[in-house]
Parts: sequence; C-alpha cells; structure tokens
Amino acid sequence: MQHRPIQRALLSVSDKTGIVAFAQALVQRGVTILSTGGTAKLLRDNQIPVTDVSEHTGQPEIMDGRVKTLHPKIHGGILGRRDQDQAVMAEQDIAPIDLVAVNLYPFANTVADPNCTHEQAVENIDIGGPTMVRAAAKNHRDVAIVVNADDYQRVITEMDAHQNSLTFETRFDLAVKAFEHTAQYDGMIANYFGARLPQQQSQFPRTFNAQFTKQQDLRYGENSHQQAAFYVESTPREASIATAVQLQGKELSYNNIADTDAALECVKSFAEPACVIVKHANPCGVAIAADALSAYERAFTTDPTSAFGGIIAFNRELDEATATAIIERQFVEVIIAPTVSAAARDVVATKPNVRLLECGQWPAERSPSWDYKRVNGGLLVQDSDLGEITAADLQVVTKKQPTEAQLKDLLFCWKVAKFVKSNAIVYARDGMTIGVGAGQMSRVYSAKIAGIKAADENLSVPGSVMASDAFFPFRDGIDAAAAAGISAIIQPGGSIRDDEVIAAADEHGIAMVFTGMRHFRH
Amino acid sequence: MQHRPIQRALLSVSDKTGIVAFAQALVQRGVTILSTGGTAKLLRDNQIPVTDVSEHTGQPEIMDGRVKTLHPKIHGGILGRRDQDQAVMAEQDIAPIDLVAVNLYPFANTVADPNCTHEQAVENIDIGGPTMVRAAAKNHRDVAIVVNADDYQRVITEMDAHQNSLTFETRFDLAVKAFEHTAQYDGMIANYFGARLPQQQSQFPRTFNAQFTKQQDLRYGENSHQQAAFYVESTPREASIATAVQLQGKELSYNNIADTDAALECVKSFAEPACVIVKHANPCGVAIAADALSAYERAFTTDPTSAFGGIIAFNRELDEATATAIIERQFVEVIIAPTVSAAARDVVATKPNVRLLECGQWPAERSPSWDYKRVNGGLLVQDSDLGEITAADLQVVTKKQPTEAQLKDLLFCWKVAKFVKSNAIVYARDGMTIGVGAGQMSRVYSAKIAGIKAADENLSVPGSVMASDAFFPFRDGIDAAAAAGISAIIQPGGSIRDDEVIAAADEHGIAMVFTGMRHFRH
Repeated sequence: MQHRPIQRALLSVSDKTGIVAFAQALVQRGVTILSTGGTAKLLRDNQIPVTDVSEHTGQPEIMDGRVKTLHPKIHGGILGRRDQDQAVMAEQDIAPIDLVAVNLYPFANTVADPNCTHEQAVENIDIGGPTMVRAAAKNHRDVAIVVNADDYQRVITEMDAHQNSLTFETRFDLAVKAFEHTAQYDGMIANYFGARLPQQQSQFPRTFNAQFTKQQDLRYGENSHQQAAFYVESTPREASIATAVQLQGKELSYNNIADTDAALECVKSFAEPACVIVKHANPCGVAIAADALSAYERAFTTDPTSAFGGIIAFNRELDEATATAIIERQFVEVIIAPTVSAAARDVVATKPNVRLLECGQWPAERSPSWDYKRVNGGLLVQDSDLGEITAADLQVVTKKQPTEAQLKDLLFCWKVAKFVKSNAIVYARDGMTIGVGAGQMSRVYSAKIAGIKAADENLSVPGSVMASDAFFPFRDGIDAAAAAGISAIIQPGGSIRDDEVIAAADEHGIAMVFTGMRHFRH
Repeated sequence: MQHRPIQRALLSVSDKTGIVAFAQALVQRGVTILSTGGTAKLLRDNQIPVTDVSEHTGQPEIMDGRVKTLHPKIHGGILGRRDQDQAVMAEQDIAPIDLVAVNLYPFANTVADPNCTHEQAVENIDIGGPTMVRAAAKNHRDVAIVVNADDYQRVITEMDAHQNSLTFETRFDLAVKAFEHTAQYDGMIANYFGARLPQQQSQFPRTFNAQFTKQQDLRYGENSHQQAAFYVESTPREASIATAVQLQGKELSYNNIADTDAALECVKSFAEPACVIVKHANPCGVAIAADALSAYERAFTTDPTSAFGGIIAFNRELDEATATAIIERQFVEVIIAPTVSAAARDVVATKPNVRLLECGQWPAERSPSWDYKRVNGGLLVQDSDLGEITAADLQVVTKKQPTEAQLKDLLFCWKVAKFVKSNAIVYARDGMTIGVGAGQMSRVYSAKIAGIKAADENLSVPGSVMASDAFFPFRDGIDAAAAAGISAIIQPGGSIRDDEVIAAADEHGIAMVFTGMRHFRH
C-alpha cells in the first residue's frame, strides 16, 4: 500500500468552510484544481486558478446542473487504478484525479423547513456529489476523498510530511468517513419520503434508518462479558447525557450512562429545585425543595441504603454546599447537573473517582424523539414518553376531595412514578418520596414494597399520598394503601373494576384522582 | 402528477430472479431494452433484443467495468425532466430512459465469507449501480426505478391497466424503496470498513448504521399516548419474536412484543421441556419438567396472581393437553412455542382473542447480536448477553458442598435470574421457581420479596436454592435467605466483602457456589 501524490483535485462543496484556504494550500503545492458551480466561483473570486468540470469534460453542464460530473472523464479519472488502467486512461484522454473534496447539503436541513414542498425536497437530492464521493472512496487505494472540512488541515499536513503524498491509512480512514456520509444522506432521504408515502398510515417509515456517531468505547457493557460502546445523535436535540461534559472522575460505564439518563430525564420533570437519586435504573429518592442542597438532603432520606453508590441528578447548578454534603456523606458514582460552580468542582475534586458531569441547560419545552426497545431479531420504536398532566387534567372520583397540599404532592408523586419501572407505586409527602415500590409483576406487591421501605427507613406514611403508574385491577392495592395510612391517590383509572376501587377509597376516606394517562416504563 | 409511458428501460441486475420474464413482458409492450454485462448476456441467451449501454453511449466499457454507465447519455436520459429538458436532450442526442431496473449485490454477502480480502470487498462496492438507482429515484416524477424482483409483476400489471404507463403513486413508492436500498447498501459498507480501521480498538464502528424493515404499525406504544411500530431485521438470525407467525388472536401490542421476547429468550435457555410465564418484562414463573404440560403447571404455581394476563412461552411444541390446561384455567395474553399442534390450535381457537404465535425451532447454538439501550440523545450498544455457565465453571466457596440435586437446581435458578430485572433474586426447588424478587434498588429487598412471594403462595422454601444475578455487597442477603430456609446459593462472587458473605453462609450451613459471571439486566 503506497503513498499517492496529489496532483489534481476536484473540489465541489456545499459547506464552504475552509475551502478557500484548502484550495490555496493545494495550489501552492502544485495541485491543479477542478471545480463546479458555486465552489468554482468562490475560488475564482479569491484568485485561485480553477478549471471548470464542463471544460475538462468537454460536456456542457445540462438540465440546470442535474448532469455535470456524471461523465467518464471524471469517473474514469477517479476510479482508474494507477497500476493497471494507465493505457486506457491515456487512450481515452482521462486525466487522473487524486483528491476529491465533496460534501453534501444536509438533506435534513432542506426538509426541516415546514414549508418545504415535495419538489423542493426532490430537487435537493444530490446525484453527482454522492457518486463522486463513493467513487473516490471505493478507489481509496489511489485516491483521497474529503467530506469534512475538519480534515483539510490533516491532508495538507500529511502532504507536507510526505512529498505531497497521502498515506494509505489516511486514505482508508477518509474513505470510511465518506461511506458514513453517503449512508447517512440516503438514510435521511429514505426516512423522509418513507414517512410521506400516500398509503403510509403512521409517522414510522417502511424501513427505519438510524445513524449514530460513536462517542466512546466502553470498558464493557451491562456485564463484563459484554463489549459495548456509547453512540450519540449527530445533532442532539437538547441537553442530555449525550451532550454532557465529564469534568472529572473515572470513565463512565455502560450502567452509569443508562442510570444517569434515567436520573436526568426524571429531574427535568420538575420546575422547582429538585434532586433525583437513581440506582439500578430506578429512582430511589426524589425531592423538590427551596434549593439544591435541601432537595438532595430530602431525596437521600428516602432510602439511604440504595442511595449508596447511586447516581445523583439536579435541575439547578451544583453549588459548593450541595457538593460538600454529598461528598462528605456518601459513596456516589455520578453527579450530573446543568452547571457546576467552580467551588463545587473543587469540592468534588477531593474524590477524584467521582464522575462529575455538566450537561447544560435544557429548554422548558421538551423536544420529541423516538425511543427504542431491542428484541431478538427486531426493534420496537415508539414516541418517547413526554406525556404530562396538570391539575386541570385531574378528575376527582371520590367523595373526599384532595386538599391543595395533597394535590401538589399528588402531581409530584405522579412525575416520579413515570420514571419508576412498572408496576410502579410511589408514596410521597411534602414534595419528597417516602417509599418507592418498583418493577413488580403484580401491582399489589409494588404497593407493599413502598410501604415496607417507608417503614424500614422510619418514614411515617400517614398523611402521605400515593401514585400508581397504571390503574388498580382490584381493590387490594387501595386497601393496602389505607392500612399504611395513605390519604390521597393518583392513578390513571380505566379498570373494569374502577367502581370497586373507588368504593374502596371512599370506604377508607381516601381522596382519589384519575389522570386518564398511563405511564408504563419497563 | 401524470402517468408516464414506459418506452425505454435499462436493466442491470445482480439478482437475476424474474428478469427474463420481466424483459420479455416489457418487449411485448414495445419497450426498448438497454442492458450491460451479465444481464445483457442472459437476455440475449433468451432471444430478447437488447442494446448494450456501451453501444448506446458510444463509450466503451473501461477499467473492467468500473466505468460503463457513468455517462451523460445514460444519466441525462434518466434525470431529464420530460417537460423542460426536451430541447437539450434532442440537441445532445440523449434518449429518455423511462424505467430503470437495477439491484445491488448485497455487500453483506460478499463480506460474509471469512476469507474475503480487503481488495475483494472493495471491488464489490458498486458505483454505477447506486448512481442509476438514485438518479431514477430522484426523477420519479418521470422515471420508474425497480430495485426488487417482487415489483416486476406490479409494474407490468399497472402498465396494462394504464396504456403502458405507471402512475405517480407507484413511481414514488418505488423511489422510496430505491433510497431504502442504497441507504442500506452504504450503511453496510460503512459498518464493515468502519470496524476495520487500523486505529479501531473495538468491534463497534465509528458511526453506527442500522436499518430495520417495518413489520407492523402498532395501535400504540408502551402507553396509549405514544405511537409505535415494530421493525425486524432484514435477515433474522434465528427463530425469535421477529420470525414468529401469529396464528390467531388480537393484534400484538407493544408490550406484548417486548414481553414475548423476554419469555421466549428465557425459555430458550433450557434443554429440558420448559415453560416461562412473563408479566411486566419479568418471569413470574419458570419450570422445567418431563413435558410441556407439567412445565406449565409448575410454572403457573409460582405466582398465579401475576400469571393472570401473562405471556407464556414454551421450548417444545404446544400440544393439546397443555393448550387445554392454559385456556381452561387462566386469562392469557400471548402463547408462543416453536410449533403448535393442530389439536392445540383448535383448543386455543375457542378463545379467539388469545394471541397464539409459532416461531419455529431455534438452533442449539445461539447467534450473537447487538443489544441497544436508548438514552436521550444517544444509544448504548452492547453484545447481547449470551453468557452461559456449566457445572464445571462453578467454584464452591463454602465448607458445605452442594448435593447433585442442589447443583441442578442452582444452575436452573441461575438461568432464570439472568432474565429477571436487576437486582434479581430467585428461589427455586426441583426445577421450579418458588419466589422471584425483581427490580429492586438494593439486593436485600429483592431477597425479601422472593421470600414474601413464596410465603404468599404457600410454597415451602426450606430445601430451596437461591440465585443472585450479582454479588452480595453485605451478609444481610445471606442472613435473610437462611432465615427463609434456603439451603444453597449461586452468585457471581467478587465483592470486597466476599469473606464476610462466605462466613455467613458457613455459619448457616448453606452451600454456596460462585459463577464468576454477572447477569445484570435492567
């Protein structure tokens, strides 16, 4: 595998970033430039000598540019094998093209405009560009393809180090980027038009194309015998675990990332200063308070045993006092907050293993996305659960009306239950979880567990409220809640035995509200 | 949007299925055929008149076929807009091409050969084919693109119904398939070479490209305010929920599919006839026995409350007796088995709502795949957990040695724990679960729940064994197990307090084995 000198380059880019400097650097190194359209004009305007592709091929650009580079002189020049196609290239007057710099206008940007018509979307599908990208990438043994402005400097630096040549390693690396670029491009087109077929009854296209960029290889997966990597979206929609910057600490593990996501997404639910502590994918303590410190203190109180080695998320800046309280008290795997004060950083720095993440501030309005669940041989795709309710959505179904304070706690409790694995039962009082019953196969056990946990931590249940992520199929869950001292209940309603369940609440003098919305999370 | 008559077609296919009959049908309808290479030869051998692309363009095929269709006469003919490019087409002697039938040799098949060299893989990257596919798909207003032999008959039928024309709807639908085809093609190339970059330290490529085919839109997702669809891999590796055929019953829901996958993958763990009942993503009853019926009877016994409305999976044929026992006894959402006897079908047919699935027999050797976990803005990708252990892998760490019968139960119990959400504690005896403690944030609560459930179902614990999916951080879990009457324990080991945990087991006269392998599943 040899170094290949760069003598002729074809530049035709949608993203003009850095192209003038790159072309200048190439020309200074004796490279002849071929170009088209807007790129050619820009280079000429900057006094860079350029040959138009149409002049090079002798074929005029036709059909408003639909056919300009699709010509044997271009593609023979790109695809010709330098060690066996010289004769035919000479005979057909095909000059070798050694470097292709082409990038494609992001189709996603075209169709992001809600007024984009079918015709405009179609006109933005590039044919010549991807063909040059793919041809140059295929022939990476002899040709370099650059699809990203970030790589211009790397090319020039390597040319200078190797008598104007590039190494095979670089050409291969650039070729892989090229196919990543075209795969993403056609995937976006297929997704966009696929969701617009006339017979299409849903937002989900006939084939589902997803592309993610690797952020890091992980030491291992959920368990040490599984290999793993963390990928992120090319354009993250909002502050999340994917945008978070790790300020210090050990490398994030697979389970760290999953749990931090759960904690952060839960804490985003609250307008008030809030703290969420997650362990094994479930919130084990959640509280709102006047400030981050009090929120943490209260969240910790729910279940100090589980909080040990947990993930702690805030929706306010991590300040010095809060950082100190955590670091002095407990073993913590990850702390994440939108921002971290300088003083808080110093405090956490005393425990260098603790992973400290700053994710930035998310917008009040959450952006929709798709959630996936992998099954063997397939993938379930659904809207992420952004369902929210307010007090106005609640229907009081019992004789007893909830008080204002209970209503506040019911809504708090409901937000927590949404992030607890189903069946989920959450007890809460004064904006703080009192007991979390997670992940049971029958609802009554989740209710029992919430009660047991409250009792084990000496948290008094009487006066607390209870949330259930789905309806009660029987009255037994209500009876158990009453026995524990629960005073008000929030749940979706919708069971065929709602009457029996409401009667049970009435019997115990419990206020109960229906949300009309379920929050299974498995 | 108008009908477009088909007068000239370009056929160049890797998959030759049906191409001769399609070409004949086109010729009978007055269509002129352009073709290349192997397709042209095959058509000529079948007495179909064909013009070679090189003859049509006047440009010889060069570089061993690397450059043959990349010519303005071909791409002008495909991309020309019939209502505005006539003049330039006439002037440049570009004949319109109205239909393109091109499909690409699956890159995945090329590289599936373990002896495939880098050069062979590169040579199999098609440049001309995808360009024609993309050009025709872009110009679907005027041109039809067929990438799948399954669509040949549809084209002919529609031509016959519309004076040799195709409708816009059909051309658009075919265009979407075309971009799905090219996106998948380049995604495979990017994944393959991306995993082979010299600096690549892992099996996970720099960008992750996934493509799935929609099997069905779902009524809704995990909850009714979420829309959802079920996608499957284009080539499923083994019998799974993705290959299952629904024999009867209501439409599968999102949660049905997820839970059926959990039940089926768990039941695949056992060589003996086995039954797994899943509710809310967790096994609530698992048993092995001499036959499917006994396995079901015993699995049901673990937790009849949770089994109500559950998903039931078998690793043997669903026979009449087993079907009868289920249908007569309980409300069931889904039954899945590799095969279903005709008599069993008749039995289940008496409950027409029950979803009955037949998935086919899976191989003894499971095939590796990737598991995904979605987080906001990103995706965790890991090897699916196919980790398995045998008796030979176990290390006895206590003074007490497990008996043969205990060893069998320990291995059974371990297989179940792998499929229970973490923290997972499973009690079992005689190849049957006695109590399942799932999804808790601290291990000791999972142990408590397993005990509570056994007691609630009047299942005697003394003499049972216990599995823990991860190590015990403290001795409290062992003490709780001893109090319940557990006689032997299986767990990974590896805690810094293993000594304390082993001492606790010795104190209680419990036999304990370490697996050295953890099975977190969140």
